[in-house]
Amino acid sequence: MTRARQIHQIDGPFRMQNGVIQDPQIAYETWGELNFPKDNAILLFTGLSPSAHAASSDLDPSNGWWEQMVGPGLPIDTSKYLVICVNSLGSCFGSTGPSSTNPETNKIYGLQFPVLTLEDVARAGHEVVKSLGLNQLYAVVGASMGGMTALAYSVLFPEVPKSLVCISSAARALPYSIALRSLQREIIRTDPAWNDGKYTDGPVVGMQLARKLGMLTYRSAAEFQQRFGRELVSEERKTGDAFGINFEVESYLDAHAIKFTGTFDANCYLYLSRAMDLFDIANHGGSLANGLARVGAKRVLVIGVETDILFPIEQQREMATELDNGKREVLFFDLPSLQGHDAFLVDMDRFRPILCDFFNCTMSQPGTLKSV
Amino acid sequence: MTRARQIHQIDGPFRMQNGVIQDPQIAYETWGELNFPKDNAILLFTGLSPSAHAASSDLDPSNGWWEQMVGPGLPIDTSKYLVICVNSLGSCFGSTGPSSTNPETNKIYGLQFPVLTLEDVARAGHEVVKSLGLNQLYAVVGASMGGMTALAYSVLFPEVPKSLVCISSAARALPYSIALRSLQREIIRTDPAWNDGKYTDGPVVGMQLARKLGMLTYRSAAEFQQRFGRELVSEERKTGDAFGINFEVESYLDAHAIKFTGTFDANCYLYLSRAMDLFDIANHGGSLANGLARVGAKRVLVIGVETDILFPIEQQREMATELDNGKREVLFFDLPSLQGHDAFLVDMDRFRPILCDFFNCTMSQPGTLKSV
Repeated sequence: MTRARQIHQIDGPFRMQNGVIQDPQIAYETWGELNFPKDNAILLFTGLSPSAHAASSDLDPSNGWWEQMVGPGLPIDTSKYLVICVNSLGSCFGSTGPSSTNPETNKIYGLQFPVLTLEDVARAGHEVVKSLGLNQLYAVVGASMGGMTALAYSVLFPEVPKSLVCISSAARALPYSIALRSLQREIIRTDPAWNDGKYTDGPVVGMQLARKLGMLTYRSAAEFQQRFGRELVSEERKTGDAFGINFEVESYLDAHAIKFTGTFDANCYLYLSRAMDLFDIANHGGSLANGLARVGAKRVLVIGVETDILFPIEQQREMATELDNGKREVLFFDLPSLQGHDAFLVDMDRFRPILCDFFNCTMSQPGTLKSV
Repeated sequence: MTRARQIHQIDGPFRMQNGVIQDPQIAYETWGELNFPKDNAILLFTGLSPSAHAASSDLDPSNGWWEQMVGPGLPIDTSKYLVICVNSLGSCFGSTGPSSTNPETNKIYGLQFPVLTLEDVARAGHEVVKSLGLNQLYAVVGASMGGMTALAYSVLFPEVPKSLVCISSAARALPYSIALRSLQREIIRTDPAWNDGKYTDGPVVGMQLARKLGMLTYRSAAEFQQRFGRELVSEERKTGDAFGINFEVESYLDAHAIKFTGTFDANCYLYLSRAMDLFDIANHGGSLANGLARVGAKRVLVIGVETDILFPIEQQREMATELDNGKREVLFFDLPSLQGHDAFLVDMDRFRPILCDFFNCTMSQPGTLKSV
């Protein structure tokens, strides 16, 4: 069953929380084989920017965004599990979103796309699960925005996933994170090239600036200090006047922003970013506790990072505590990584043993699990 | 001697670290009277954005930026001390800076103004001190950028201040803070209205966005959570599309950004912001320890705030530890305020007793001092 990107076509109307779209597509990739009792599938939701390409495969040997986590003999072991990763509804890597053509008008949706919620993203992912003939999942897994989506999925379809893995995420967006994302969106929207969402080439400058702000929320001051200190770039790499690139840290951010821009559609970025702000598990039952009580999974793994400023560790602790209602097993890990919110992508040595133990893998260094 | 804004005219060339300017002016205000032995003067340096108007006076009864700290019977007691507050060289409230006219060309300096350092700001402040006939100061005091400037002053003129008060500041800029400021500057510079520094009305959008990012570095996530939670604005106050103002925290930032813009010149902001990046006390003697060893003051008060992400508390702790070389008295306070970097402007009840004790004031609630 190993193959590169698939498209699941939903025929007819798809009801979103704030509107209806026609015939949307959801892109996904799978790795590994479904077993006979059909109980070894793992559904993986992504953060804001990745595609469904979580790991390399024979048909697409390029590195995926979680290459060191998903694969044969890795913590999410594709020789034991069927792993399904979906590109979020609203994104721009094969799934329908604001940059897609509305079949009813033959025009790009742009800002006519309904306001997106992570519940919509979860429901679209479930369409893929159903299309594969699955009634249950071994686990639903997500980090960052994907962790919110996995949580939404666990509440919307409580009978489906037997376990939930929520990494560097939150049960609801807090105002500081909302403000940081709101400013990124405003930076994009005030770029004249955004043109009220009706662009052809897109707001390059706005996207680069927003990405730089994003980077500053994804990493930590301690990591920057260790990596860059007050190092200056060499004379020939200095750019512009006194306000151009002088420090190595400025050069680093610039290189990352340039790399990102052009790969991601601006309107999709706006919609997915706002969807995180709107997420609040209390919308399901009236309170955080009630919302989390609706999670059906019997095993839950919550991991957070102490230096994360976008999804602070206290949110993960609160989520783990509330989920630990005596009806399920809850494991909570508070990691002292320097890499902040992005640690799950770059500080893999801390995460792999925990995921490995949770998924009963057979890595050479499985690590040890401690409970809450 | 109580009077509103004065201008000290420096006649002839003023040598800055990176160039020479002609006949600059330094704006300042004073409160209180000089005593007979001329040993009761306190020099106050400001953060990036304030003017010299630290407190109200008979001639200018409007509230100053440190109204609750400077005045008769207040911690910096103007019935005991002569307080002098200078508008920084490079700023735009009476002192010469990028928005001033270059007397040699009769044109606005703009980007022709030499790259500014906080040592330049300190030296310009000292011109005012000399013009008032003072050979010594009871103290030099500063918070944020002003704390860096006060530290520079204490190293450049070690015989002049008998004591140093450094609040929410640092002995050098760290890469995360540099990156945050660099992004603010880039946001301003990429606003087409900035026009390579040759504007008439100024880059309003860029300044507003930069101010919002500034606000996010001046406050803390914990404060935002307490103040705003996930509160939505009322329907009639919602603006724009789904990406406009929906949450109270977005409305708050917008109101502050609009208030700020128009009061501060964009090029001045760029120069002062970069001056903070360039500040490193290690430039005086080759290392942080050597630089701080040059501080002449015999009494030092260092105050930091635990939630400050722009000038982290560890920088204040390091500064206090290094300054405590057995040759002087060093007091260090680590305050648990929620207000982050801006706490010295808004969480006054924590600061007043400490400053009061340090300056032997007679407040009704003087608080207690603990040493490092």
